[in-house]
Amino acid sequence: MSKALKIGIAGLGTVGRGVVKALEQNKDLIAARAGRAIEIAGISARSRHTDRGVDLSVYRWYDNPVDMAEASDIDVVVELIGGSDGIAKALAETALHNDKSLVTANKALIAHHGMALAATAEEKGLVIRLDAAVAGGIPIIKTISDGLAANRCKSVMGILNGTCNYILTQMEKSGRAFEDVLAEAQALGYAEADPSFDVDGIDTAHKLSILAAVSFGTAVDFNAIAIEGIRRITPVDIRYADELGYRIKLLGVASYNNGHLDQRVAPCMVAKTSALAWVNDVFNAVVVDGDFVEKTVYEGRGAGEGPTASAVVADLVDVARGNRTPVFSVPVKALAKADSASQGSLKASFYLHVRVADEPGVIASITELLSEQKISIENLLQRGGGSADGGIDVIFTTHETEEGRLRTALDRVASLRTVLDKPTALQLVKG
Amino acid sequence: MSKALKIGIAGLGTVGRGVVKALEQNKDLIAARAGRAIEIAGISARSRHTDRGVDLSVYRWYDNPVDMAEASDIDVVVELIGGSDGIAKALAETALHNDKSLVTANKALIAHHGMALAATAEEKGLVIRLDAAVAGGIPIIKTISDGLAANRCKSVMGILNGTCNYILTQMEKSGRAFEDVLAEAQALGYAEADPSFDVDGIDTAHKLSILAAVSFGTAVDFNAIAIEGIRRITPVDIRYADELGYRIKLLGVASYNNGHLDQRVAPCMVAKTSALAWVNDVFNAVVVDGDFVEKTVYEGRGAGEGPTASAVVADLVDVARGNRTPVFSVPVKALAKADSASQGSLKASFYLHVRVADEPGVIASITELLSEQKISIENLLQRGGGSADGGIDVIFTTHETEEGRLRTALDRVASLRTVLDKPTALQLVKG
Repeated sequence: MSKALKIGIAGLGTVGRGVVKALEQNKDLIAARAGRAIEIAGISARSRHTDRGVDLSVYRWYDNPVDMAEASDIDVVVELIGGSDGIAKALAETALHNDKSLVTANKALIAHHGMALAATAEEKGLVIRLDAAVAGGIPIIKTISDGLAANRCKSVMGILNGTCNYILTQMEKSGRAFEDVLAEAQALGYAEADPSFDVDGIDTAHKLSILAAVSFGTAVDFNAIAIEGIRRITPVDIRYADELGYRIKLLGVASYNNGHLDQRVAPCMVAKTSALAWVNDVFNAVVVDGDFVEKTVYEGRGAGEGPTASAVVADLVDVARGNRTPVFSVPVKALAKADSASQGSLKASFYLHVRVADEPGVIASITELLSEQKISIENLLQRGGGSADGGIDVIFTTHETEEGRLRTALDRVASLRTVLDKPTALQLVKG
Repeated sequence: MSKALKIGIAGLGTVGRGVVKALEQNKDLIAARAGRAIEIAGISARSRHTDRGVDLSVYRWYDNPVDMAEASDIDVVVELIGGSDGIAKALAETALHNDKSLVTANKALIAHHGMALAATAEEKGLVIRLDAAVAGGIPIIKTISDGLAANRCKSVMGILNGTCNYILTQMEKSGRAFEDVLAEAQALGYAEADPSFDVDGIDTAHKLSILAAVSFGTAVDFNAIAIEGIRRITPVDIRYADELGYRIKLLGVASYNNGHLDQRVAPCMVAKTSALAWVNDVFNAVVVDGDFVEKTVYEGRGAGEGPTASAVVADLVDVARGNRTPVFSVPVKALAKADSASQGSLKASFYLHVRVADEPGVIASITELLSEQKISIENLLQRGGGSADGGIDVIFTTHETEEGRLRTALDRVASLRTVLDKPTALQLVKG
């Protein structure tokens, strides 16, 4: 057996602790699979004396992780600090500068600086591995890069944020409002005190930008993603989704066609005939559509100590085996600079929720505006029963239409005197 | 870019044709991912002049595939002939003997001779790749071996045979009997003229033996698998399954605990709350439970030109990249020789279908025999309405019990004068 791979772990929160546990608990198995031992040669975190439930006193401690990235006895730096810039970025750059490979769970770092880091790594013959950054325990980056390597991917989509999926699942189970369920999720530790990264879709977008690059061989392009979060979803939407045969899920969806890359994050109505509709609570799932394999589905836990540690350690095994697969499946130099598909060109069916005053002629004026844009209506649902503000909820589903036409129509609908709130439009996703 | 990887393809049926198409159609992408071109340096099949819909005249033809395995300009032999012995085995052995790596879609060959072939390959520093042998387009071998490398797997189970899943799905949709649906599947080309390998569970067992080895690091042990097929499933079972909240699926299930390996293939009642229950028609799915990642689910097409070719070509990319991961994830020498878990020690709940004469006291005599074995009944369903033979169907579900006790009880039940047919027992699978 070759000599041990020496690693330095920066960040000892939930994931870091899990990595130490996995490396200790499954030491022999991991060595057998990797072809050599994987040894912890250094650790670093903000506070040395926090009780983390594992004995860390046997490992060499660094107050400053960047010092660890310079240590001559370390082959790979494991970055589990988080954040797109600051210390995480400095650590990653220092590691590569000092000829160490990098394993990271940091989607923000890769979404914003992954191209530059990968270019440096590939120039120097080093590797970066980032499977833990996307969909926690699901080894989706390896799956696309290795398992589906024969395929030109047509689309990739997924439920990539466990917090949002938990909130939407609980809203569905309990009928409660977003704010209520969010507050409960915060109390349970499933959502951050500042939940914006999760509920506004930014975390999903970080992950989607990485998935798209690996799937299509295109440059990471986070800034081109149209992002919408789940704050505007109401119990009314949840209820009608169920009635119409759908569930509401926050999806990241990317497709690549003729040099045009379309990336979007938005709550969607997913048909119950699709596997994605059955992925609940903190679980994640990804659907990859390749030209030879067709649709394949991958499902597992999206976060947490064990699943994320599983991904980090699998990446370490990959490095230990000496695999040199490029960071984004093809070399950075070969990644295509795709055009962003023009916003609005998407063809899809939609669910519309318009809150209106209970007056004669309201629905006629809305349907007229839709009709002007050649949008044809499949279902129209409206139930009696006024609420405190005297408003009523009118629900439409449309036949397939161009998104741009829909947005134009909805802008006009929103400006009607009888429309009480900005309409909600959710794409219908069949499979 | 390094020099091209030269391959020889033996067998030009559906899968072989798909491999040629994928290598031609996605040539540049595959080269970018593999780090070098993958070139077809030879082909061989039974008949040279069959029209296969792709132009094969540009490739060097071998009448005898074994000659191709000796050719000095070939690096990898792709075995797509099938069958556990005969020409496929000779070809595999010749390839390794001549220092060529092997990519195969042949589950029977690996189930029976995989250990010996892998030992030869590993001694000589060659690789064998076999992802196409299990679950078609789902890259499940790579996923377990690489993506879940950090985990000690606790169990692996799946729907591994598309023909059986198609038949069961059609029985459910149409209410028709097994024989009817089988005949239709044969007419459509979804089932072989001799369907035994599929419907009697042997194909599933071949695949399970490989999955178990990769998941647990245990020696392939096909002969230890308890195998039951789907011939005895009736429309009555399908209907009651639905009523009780289940679907009937032919599962391969393996678990490893304390040095004991339990492997079984049998039709099971899968709860509709499980992702596996929603895998229909020719689709396959695998659930892997690892100690860190917990349960993960993988779903895709189980066979066919595109999906299987996708797996073969991904294996070729892996070889082209120079990856040396052992055939069964750990070296053959390190594979544990597991004890077979003693048959009957499984603890589970069961569905029982007993066909009885419509006479007083019949149910009492059955429940007494169950009670003697300390088997407690959760549900008992019996509907009026005699059939031609005057028999009625009595359905039980049990609380958790030891399988051995159940078998003892059922042997006694079967010998009751009032019991008209051998009872059916199906394990209830919750997740």
